[in-house]
Amino acid sequence: MKYYINKRITANFEQSLELVIEALKTEGFGVLSEIDIQQKLKEKLDVDFRKYKILGACNPPNAYKALQHEDKIGVLLPCNVIIQELDDGKTEVAAVDPVVSMMAVESPELESIAKEIRTKLQKVIDTL
Amino acid sequence: MKYYINKRITANFEQSLELVIEALKTEGFGVLSEIDIQQKLKEKLDVDFRKYKILGACNPPNAYKALQHEDKIGVLLPCNVIIQELDDGKTEVAAVDPVVSMMAVESPELESIAKEIRTKLQKVIDTL
Repeated sequence: MKYYINKRITANFEQSLELVIEALKTEGFGVLSEIDIQQKLKEKLDVDFRKYKILGACNPPNAYKALQHEDKIGVLLPCNVIIQELDDGKTEVAAVDPVVSMMAVESPELESIAKEIRTKLQKVIDTL
Repeated sequence: MKYYINKRITANFEQSLELVIEALKTEGFGVLSEIDIQQKLKEKLDVDFRKYKILGACNPPNAYKALQHEDKIGVLLPCNVIIQELDDGKTEVAAVDPVVSMMAVESPELESIAKEIRTKLQKVIDTL
């Protein structure tokens, strides 16, 4: 089952990062965390990995609603958006599909919130 | 379906946070992100929420293996561990069950890595 919404774009890694953060902002998401996988893997395992970042995106009103329905939903928050460099210097952006990642929760309220978030994340990817 | 591994402990919120970070370290996890939900909800929505933190835990060798098998698995990384204050001043800790959160990936290699991580996260929760 496809668990992400993705797009390959011609912008380079650094430009893509800016574009994604801006597009997230437009759709009401703040970036609560930013993990640099390339740097972490170099630091912890001394391996060379391509440019790869994980952004933790959060839409506060929806996060609040989700937490009120499911007190442990934080284990599945925020919604991640990854940016990775491709061999040709272009970039791939992928956002988690929250309907899929939260499907085990089996709550109609949560599913409805997850669908709303998926629509917003799809818009983010579409504008890139 | 249960999507987390949880435990209620008598330590207060701040003590629990220290205990969890220490237990994660013992099992080979670093904390790559720390989100203060109480503070974020106050700042963004001006609502009062209980003490609630999301730690992004990562075991570098397993994360590296997972990324080599599934280039977009970063949308489901790191593995979150939440700590929340209960009404009686005690604390609840819950770790995501990575076998459940990654089930849509439908990859035997990923499932095997997720099982290894679940065993480690279960140990973290057990030692609290």
